[in-house]
Amino acid sequence: MIDNFWAVVPAGGAGTRLWPVSRAGAPKFLRDLRGSGRTLIQETHDRLTPLAGDRLMVVTGTAHAAAVADQLPGLPADAIIAEPSARDSMAAIGLAAALLERRDPDAVMGSFAADHVITDQQGFAEAVGTAVAVAREGWLVTLGIEPTFPSSAFGYIRSGADLDGHPGAQRVAAFVEKPSVEVATGYLAEGGYRWNAGMFVVRPTVLLDLLAEWHPRFAASLRAIAAEPDTLATVWPSLPKIALDHAVAEPAADAGRVATVPASFAWDDIGDFDSLATLLAGDEPMTVLGDAAAVHAVDATGLVVTAGRTVAVVGLEDVVVVDTPDALLVTSRARAQEVKAVVAALKESGRTDLV
Amino acid sequence: MIDNFWAVVPAGGAGTRLWPVSRAGAPKFLRDLRGSGRTLIQETHDRLTPLAGDRLMVVTGTAHAAAVADQLPGLPADAIIAEPSARDSMAAIGLAAALLERRDPDAVMGSFAADHVITDQQGFAEAVGTAVAVAREGWLVTLGIEPTFPSSAFGYIRSGADLDGHPGAQRVAAFVEKPSVEVATGYLAEGGYRWNAGMFVVRPTVLLDLLAEWHPRFAASLRAIAAEPDTLATVWPSLPKIALDHAVAEPAADAGRVATVPASFAWDDIGDFDSLATLLAGDEPMTVLGDAAAVHAVDATGLVVTAGRTVAVVGLEDVVVVDTPDALLVTSRARAQEVKAVVAALKESGRTDLV
Repeated sequence: MIDNFWAVVPAGGAGTRLWPVSRAGAPKFLRDLRGSGRTLIQETHDRLTPLAGDRLMVVTGTAHAAAVADQLPGLPADAIIAEPSARDSMAAIGLAAALLERRDPDAVMGSFAADHVITDQQGFAEAVGTAVAVAREGWLVTLGIEPTFPSSAFGYIRSGADLDGHPGAQRVAAFVEKPSVEVATGYLAEGGYRWNAGMFVVRPTVLLDLLAEWHPRFAASLRAIAAEPDTLATVWPSLPKIALDHAVAEPAADAGRVATVPASFAWDDIGDFDSLATLLAGDEPMTVLGDAAAVHAVDATGLVVTAGRTVAVVGLEDVVVVDTPDALLVTSRARAQEVKAVVAALKESGRTDLV
Repeated sequence: MIDNFWAVVPAGGAGTRLWPVSRAGAPKFLRDLRGSGRTLIQETHDRLTPLAGDRLMVVTGTAHAAAVADQLPGLPADAIIAEPSARDSMAAIGLAAALLERRDPDAVMGSFAADHVITDQQGFAEAVGTAVAVAREGWLVTLGIEPTFPSSAFGYIRSGADLDGHPGAQRVAAFVEKPSVEVATGYLAEGGYRWNAGMFVVRPTVLLDLLAEWHPRFAASLRAIAAEPDTLATVWPSLPKIALDHAVAEPAADAGRVATVPASFAWDDIGDFDSLATLLAGDEPMTVLGDAAAVHAVDATGLVVTAGRTVAVVGLEDVVVVDTPDALLVTSRARAQEVKAVVAALKESGRTDLV
């Protein structure tokens, strides 16, 4: 347990790249995507509880608040903050910061998405412990994931000078946008680059003061809501839709106010079925999420997600088959990202019941 | 209508290459595989009625007799002959011949499988008309399908000398077994080879007398059953399991007793999902059997069979997706034949409910 450490879990973002497993009504954080028996938000909770105890807040959409409460029955009702509408990560995390600023003047908060996979509890705890120590000194701290391959799916953190007194911690020279694979390969060869997993540790007041430097009205609105929670519904729609990275982290890095702590634990945000296949890959040529006995693969590799129905796959390499009660997806690992196009087409044709 | 012409429809063979659409309990002849609104046996019936009127007999397994009666409600009850067990085509067609021999001394019978696809009614009627005329003279007549490509999936008929008085008809020099594609290519280049579609036209007595030359006891047993139908259940199990081609057609061809009539109509026996895909192919890159509105193909080609559920296919070429309420198959057109291995594995694992 870390003193005065508060875990903030933004649980939002109905991504479309894991359709038909993930739906607007049932986003991936509510799903058991590892076949572990726990959903991703339950695993996130389990990972944070040893560090934060019951100092955990979930920020989620009103549509999912009841499901979150169901899945995390130990959580007090006021630990779930329901956003009236989706207004991106700055509003979600900023609101938690504003509430915490009033509640615990010594708080250090860490923000960890509800749908990431981290199984190395020890490595995670150590990195967060270091990040909290750095954050207490007034830094906005981001965890930098040691890259294992030149991914074009993540933004990168470029490290600067070492930070005194905190071995391993460094200033952030810059955040860089998702690069091409070629550019990413150069980053890995050059060294000093880490994946930006969007995990921030910071004192709530520091975060809001930084926000106030570039978006003063935004910061003031968040603090106003925290002072008068009844105003949430009326003030919320006026908040800018902007990611924390753009609103605060990037300008703060330019101003020399952001530090990074290296994280060597394995991390995945399960961006699509290709990364899910990598995450789940075992000894069998065909990886199965669900009842493996229901899947018959003959000279076939890839990923099958089954809801229990018999699935036979014959003579296909790196195929992705995702079977749910009302919708079926068949694609390849290489083209898995393009399921977005299907979701867009379904929306356009009015099949909002399926997306 | 052709005088004294009797259509015999063997409706058997629970093939496994169209699993999971075709099952032991619901073989393909009971299915609407063309999306025409009629099942294959109904289409076979519709094709034969203009030629045979109500002189139509279906020989099928006891397990399917009720389903056949349901699908062909106009058929009199004694038009459906239920085989106590599957004993291959010689027993099935031979029994029909033995019954007809007693019923109509002037009968000419034609045997047409219940699960073949022929849409050219005019071409079919003409070929059968010619075949009946030849058969009345005592020939065993087989319809020879003009090959459209060097298939390795069918046996071939090698034509011999022209038959006097029947323009186009020829003696059969030999039946040849399914060749390799290379050998078949040679056949097509050489000319004089046609596909053996297993469609025979013959006077019942001629067929049974030919059978009696090589399998006298077999012919006698069939005639005994016809004389005393009550003995069917006891005699049937003693009949040899042999195809009509091997029992009669091949030795009779060697003896110069078989004629062939050219058939230029398009014909398909839907041997697997690859040939079904060819059969159904239309203008869209993705061919759909079932509700096309339920299928969303993004840069994908091949065949989707849907039972109504939403199916999305992304970025796959020549893929085969067959969705049924309790089982799903995903394969490629090139590997479609190997679904047999899945059926074998399901049987072995005791999932007879699925095969």
